[in-house]
Amino acid sequence: MLLAAWENYLEQHKIRFLSELVEFLRIPSVSSLSEHAADVERAGEWVAERLRAAGMEGVCQLPCEGPPVVYGEWLHAPGKPTVLIYGHFDTQPVDPVDLWTNPPFEPVVRGGRVYARGASDDKGNMLIPILAIESMLETEGVLPVNVKVLFEGEEEVGSPHLSAVLEWNRERLACDLAVSADGFQGGEEQPILLLGFKGLCALQVDVEGTNADLHSGVYGGTVQNPIHALARLLDTLRSAQGQVLVEGFYEDVVAATPEERRQIAAVPFDETAYREQLGAGELFGEPGYTTRERAWVRPTLEVNGIWGGFQGEGMKTVIPREAHAKISCRLVADQDPEKTLQQVTTHLHTKAPPGVRVDVHLESAMASAYVMPADHPGNRAAHAVLEELYGCPPYHTRMGGTLPVCGLLLDLLDVHTVTFAFGLEDENAHAPDEFFRLDSFERGQEAYRLLLRRLAQQDGLQS
Amino acid sequence: MLLAAWENYLEQHKIRFLSELVEFLRIPSVSSLSEHAADVERAGEWVAERLRAAGMEGVCQLPCEGPPVVYGEWLHAPGKPTVLIYGHFDTQPVDPVDLWTNPPFEPVVRGGRVYARGASDDKGNMLIPILAIESMLETEGVLPVNVKVLFEGEEEVGSPHLSAVLEWNRERLACDLAVSADGFQGGEEQPILLLGFKGLCALQVDVEGTNADLHSGVYGGTVQNPIHALARLLDTLRSAQGQVLVEGFYEDVVAATPEERRQIAAVPFDETAYREQLGAGELFGEPGYTTRERAWVRPTLEVNGIWGGFQGEGMKTVIPREAHAKISCRLVADQDPEKTLQQVTTHLHTKAPPGVRVDVHLESAMASAYVMPADHPGNRAAHAVLEELYGCPPYHTRMGGTLPVCGLLLDLLDVHTVTFAFGLEDENAHAPDEFFRLDSFERGQEAYRLLLRRLAQQDGLQS
Repeated sequence: MLLAAWENYLEQHKIRFLSELVEFLRIPSVSSLSEHAADVERAGEWVAERLRAAGMEGVCQLPCEGPPVVYGEWLHAPGKPTVLIYGHFDTQPVDPVDLWTNPPFEPVVRGGRVYARGASDDKGNMLIPILAIESMLETEGVLPVNVKVLFEGEEEVGSPHLSAVLEWNRERLACDLAVSADGFQGGEEQPILLLGFKGLCALQVDVEGTNADLHSGVYGGTVQNPIHALARLLDTLRSAQGQVLVEGFYEDVVAATPEERRQIAAVPFDETAYREQLGAGELFGEPGYTTRERAWVRPTLEVNGIWGGFQGEGMKTVIPREAHAKISCRLVADQDPEKTLQQVTTHLHTKAPPGVRVDVHLESAMASAYVMPADHPGNRAAHAVLEELYGCPPYHTRMGGTLPVCGLLLDLLDVHTVTFAFGLEDENAHAPDEFFRLDSFERGQEAYRLLLRRLAQQDGLQS
Repeated sequence: MLLAAWENYLEQHKIRFLSELVEFLRIPSVSSLSEHAADVERAGEWVAERLRAAGMEGVCQLPCEGPPVVYGEWLHAPGKPTVLIYGHFDTQPVDPVDLWTNPPFEPVVRGGRVYARGASDDKGNMLIPILAIESMLETEGVLPVNVKVLFEGEEEVGSPHLSAVLEWNRERLACDLAVSADGFQGGEEQPILLLGFKGLCALQVDVEGTNADLHSGVYGGTVQNPIHALARLLDTLRSAQGQVLVEGFYEDVVAATPEERRQIAAVPFDETAYREQLGAGELFGEPGYTTRERAWVRPTLEVNGIWGGFQGEGMKTVIPREAHAKISCRLVADQDPEKTLQQVTTHLHTKAPPGVRVDVHLESAMASAYVMPADHPGNRAAHAVLEELYGCPPYHTRMGGTLPVCGLLLDLLDVHTVTFAFGLEDENAHAPDEFFRLDSFERGQEAYRLLLRRLAQQDGLQS
């Protein structure tokens, strides 16, 4: 019986799959730091090798001006839909590294979890479809649909080179549906179907006062201090409740419909548990919206980092010459990232306190927000699989994270992207002690097999 | 002829003196950083050795719970006043080290200046009286007054252990006048007599939001961001014009008298030159006061450093778990440093935005402001020497820097301190590319000889 054989295969190779994940996680493929460029390359080679071992064909690196983009295909299901599976093998940086229990690139398996940077976002998740494909090809000899895979190495910096790769490879990448192995599930018992992501744009603001650090006794009180000026400037960006005060920031926001707000409200939310999990004294946010709405359907502006002057032990009585902050915005439809950057830049220049020079440097990586119709055939298939696996229907929600590939695939290949991934919100993606549940790792392998089978029969996918 | 011999001695040993200064400057005696504790010790040993070579007697390290305090004496002028000369051999930290033209502890002599951390503040200045003493003892065989010297290694962190050393050694240190080799002159052509210094107190404020860094997509807009909260909090400390808004901050300030304001106004001040030297776009400060008054007789509050979240290359879309700032105040008579710290602490707790925890850590080092009567016999002697050397009378001013020793000597030994030092304001004390003029180094040696001679005849010094 083939099904039994397939399940046996997963069971028999469980230890090997885990040790492969650990091997993959050992590669410090941090895409935002140039000193890790070679590691990102190495991770790409590892992925290509793993795809070949799984039985994928035509595995290669697509020409790209950025880090490697790995492609592979299996196209022996004539008349069946073609599905493009996406994921990324780069990771976030690791600082503050002293808050990690174990070194971030020395994976530790403990209590049914594997701890390492990239475990949940996205190496654990992106390995799942590869293992599902291997097990199907090894036990059944075929896949139920035509499959293409596309794994990139700069998602964590906003995929700045991906659009060019998609443009140059429109024909090769042509498909009926994309499936993203980057995303989230709702909980261990509760699936969700993600219908949208926020967009992203970012910048750095540099405030310069004098041409050198100054003695605060000699010059204190006579010149503007860049840290005071930066604090004042940052404080103009948001109200005390976190509402963004940049002129025009909200003007293109498409308000969530009553039906969307109802769907969001249907997702159980335990405010106390949320607060306690985060260790936050109290919650906070834009008036007129629930916490979930703030996270999923409202745009946000956050300062991600700040620095200037003396940060060492003890004291140094200096007026620093300069101070800096990094700012990013998460956007919702129909906000335009370039327009938003322009609005924030104008705000920072307009509100600049006297006595300092304010410079703004835009991050080139940016992404549009993405929304997918709930009744899209791809979503109908994913809905059914999740319901079968979890024993209850998935909630339909959006999410605050950003997946640049979704907007790019829609614009350039004219396909929607079903998000089909198994990370959970509490797994410290982007933070110290990131982990991935081994249960999710295994359940995901079964889920991908069920999804590919169901997509083979799904109406409305092929035009 | 003795005078000629003395001048010859300085001339003949000029190169040796400079090479000794360079050797002294090579010791990275940064007192605020514990990793440099051994270097501060080494600088103390260097000073003790140099004092012995100069002919000082009883040279020893006074027992101290902090870094070494070096003492020496020459007490063979019966019936003459006893003068205690003070200086410090520790330095400020060097960061931002990438803004230095040369490494800060690899001294470079160029264009009549020696560049190194500590060159002006205070190693160059404190070596001057030692060389003057050596030259007098070598050529004249005696000093005109009894001399004691006291050089410490933690002035740059506020001399936290000095008061205990003074208390334990009241008898040994008893004197008629103290002279500080730490301080400033007005310019290359213009002397000043410093009649007062500001006090100092400092603290660190820590703002903590959650128990880990958070993904700004997943959690953005739902919890208070510690950087936004810190920016808001810091912005409540001062008005847009730099007036301190902490309740009670100004209540004990003794206003400058009309005569003091007249003296200050008599000091020429070229605002354009000042701005251009600093590279400041425009000046700034507390309304109702001139730039000099702000610097010399008004208390100030400055943020000396700030940090939190991601500071690296590129972007990291994180809400950091915490953010920090270092704050110090320069005080004037009769502000009390402990009371001021309490006021600032209360302000920071009272104004703390909701959703974060605010902790305040006080720096133990603090100093009271110091003011000395203009007509004190020590000042009359110093005035006359400066007028003789520069060919014009010194301005009488106060200064924004802090010299904790002055208040301590007055409280514990009941003596005033004449400031007699030769650094200039533009020499980047506390900043990158600190330097000291070799002209000042040499002129200072002559000045100390003249001062000691004049103090031998000065009326009113001995009780």
